[in-house]
Amino acid sequence: MKSSRYAAAGVDIDAKAAALARARDVIRSTFTLGVLGDVGGFGGLFRPDLSAYREPVLVASTDGVGTKLKVAFETGRHDTCGADLVNHCVNDILVQGAQPLFFLDYLATGRLDPDVAVQIVEGLARACRENGCALLGGETAEMPGFYADGEYDVAGFIVGSVERERVIDGRNIAPGDVLIGLPSSGLHTNGYSLARTIVFERLKLGIHDRVPELGMTVADALLAPHRSYLPAIRPLLATPRNSIKGMAHITGGGITDNLPRVLPSGTDAVVRLGSWDVSPVFRWLEREGAVAREDMLRTFNMGVGLVLVVAPGDADEVMGALRGAGEPAGRVIGAIAQSVAAVPPRVRYE
Amino acid sequence: MKSSRYAAAGVDIDAKAAALARARDVIRSTFTLGVLGDVGGFGGLFRPDLSAYREPVLVASTDGVGTKLKVAFETGRHDTCGADLVNHCVNDILVQGAQPLFFLDYLATGRLDPDVAVQIVEGLARACRENGCALLGGETAEMPGFYADGEYDVAGFIVGSVERERVIDGRNIAPGDVLIGLPSSGLHTNGYSLARTIVFERLKLGIHDRVPELGMTVADALLAPHRSYLPAIRPLLATPRNSIKGMAHITGGGITDNLPRVLPSGTDAVVRLGSWDVSPVFRWLEREGAVAREDMLRTFNMGVGLVLVVAPGDADEVMGALRGAGEPAGRVIGAIAQSVAAVPPRVRYE
Repeated sequence: MKSSRYAAAGVDIDAKAAALARARDVIRSTFTLGVLGDVGGFGGLFRPDLSAYREPVLVASTDGVGTKLKVAFETGRHDTCGADLVNHCVNDILVQGAQPLFFLDYLATGRLDPDVAVQIVEGLARACRENGCALLGGETAEMPGFYADGEYDVAGFIVGSVERERVIDGRNIAPGDVLIGLPSSGLHTNGYSLARTIVFERLKLGIHDRVPELGMTVADALLAPHRSYLPAIRPLLATPRNSIKGMAHITGGGITDNLPRVLPSGTDAVVRLGSWDVSPVFRWLEREGAVAREDMLRTFNMGVGLVLVVAPGDADEVMGALRGAGEPAGRVIGAIAQSVAAVPPRVRYE
Repeated sequence: MKSSRYAAAGVDIDAKAAALARARDVIRSTFTLGVLGDVGGFGGLFRPDLSAYREPVLVASTDGVGTKLKVAFETGRHDTCGADLVNHCVNDILVQGAQPLFFLDYLATGRLDPDVAVQIVEGLARACRENGCALLGGETAEMPGFYADGEYDVAGFIVGSVERERVIDGRNIAPGDVLIGLPSSGLHTNGYSLARTIVFERLKLGIHDRVPELGMTVADALLAPHRSYLPAIRPLLATPRNSIKGMAHITGGGITDNLPRVLPSGTDAVVRLGSWDVSPVFRWLEREGAVAREDMLRTFNMGVGLVLVVAPGDADEVMGALRGAGEPAGRVIGAIAQSVAAVPPRVRYE
């Protein structure tokens, strides 16, 4: 059917089928016990093990990779955006106390390159396996005229579960609580429009140019995958008592916009600049782009990808648990204060 | 912060925040009893009512609107793609016996037009309300350089639930079973690359031109929203016994590619051309595009948006239930036959 009219109009159903067939085994490698049926149904079937729950709550989130994809296009590396997408989604439900059950992807392109599609799915599947999360389904959409040649967009959707009384929602956060920051692995998936402007337009660097200050190429600096905080946080979720009062995933908007999302009214977060090591890539972007510190903090994670809020008496225990989970680099980066006025919670930097 | 560097690089966080604020009330209007918390968390929280279930199974699916969006862009109507997206997803899990719990959307654009975003969300919310489905979350991504001015892509993710022993998976389909087709409302969301080539390139029609044969404009013919089959099928799912052995949602690939997805090996579907009224819009496209009938059947739904497979003894009862649910136009369009060879199930047309 290569000669079908539909193919002539830009959509080749058979090429899509061939890519899906090649991806089938990869997808099956992610299947956890809950998955019923096989690849290829209209919907994916998942039987959650609810035996340990009194009142299960499902937590769902969706996200994309954003313009970080442009960097992937330039390097021809299509197997890293899977980790970006899956780990971003895992973190978004983790901050409410949920652990992942399953993930679905939406891949949209102009004309499907089956090799690229398989690379993308392999990256997604690897990240799903690492998070114990089934890749339950996906859609591959060919949309001629929407995406430039060789380009695509990809979105992810995750569902996890949490015991209702273990939902982490920040409601008990109070003045005096301690902020613990966990290191990011780079830009994660945010701030790429600005970063690309600085690197490619202002500095006129090429994607494979080496940045001596960073000891790596532009591609390696900008493509470092978004990390998952699930291995670090999971042991804390399994303790008899919730020691984490609130968690914020530091994505678009930085600490400035994300931390207030979990703060109850009447509180502010006071973050001490200098209490953690701002990653070299952010110092480089800030200087070379002549970006105001305020804008940096509202655009990039600045080296802190996840913020925990804990009672002062729990801080040592939480730091110990993090070290025990292979996460030694957590730092106390500030504290909760009483709000100075009847305004919504915000971050004050010191 | 309008003057922030990030805004200068193409992303205006405040414009996005303003649009989200305007959309908040609309989103809340979809909240069903299961929704916990409010708009704006990192993940959406949903407490499913599992009291009536012995062994609940979650069914999830994702889809986009495809190049039908191009037609929406040309007309400036941004409130119909929500129904396309939600209803498509609802049908994709309905064919496995599941009813929707919640929906999430991913909206990606070059530069966010808050008015357009609100129109899209209003369409999504209306369709969610009509399907009794909570709009639990979403992501609005600004990706400068990815999408042409005024264009966007939108994907949907749905999760529903079904009692495990009521999952409809086609495994009991046997020769002699009857195929019942339910009418589509138009092209639904498939075949637009070909349809646009015929209408705009071959016929050189404008979006607002009237097509006398159809009694409507090109825009109205091509933008008719994808319908939801949930109201028609729901009563049948509530009966003590599963009378539906299998269901296929007729999307990209037509009856030819979608019906075999639910057939067990050793069976074929024999579909009688002429047993239903092919909608005028398909007859028009077929003639004006000089498209082979075979290609039409593998590209468009041809007027049949959902196919049910039922035992011959149940056909009258099912047709009666459909009429009772306000769906009088169901037609017997064929039957299941023994496979003629050791090949995968396929559709034979008579």
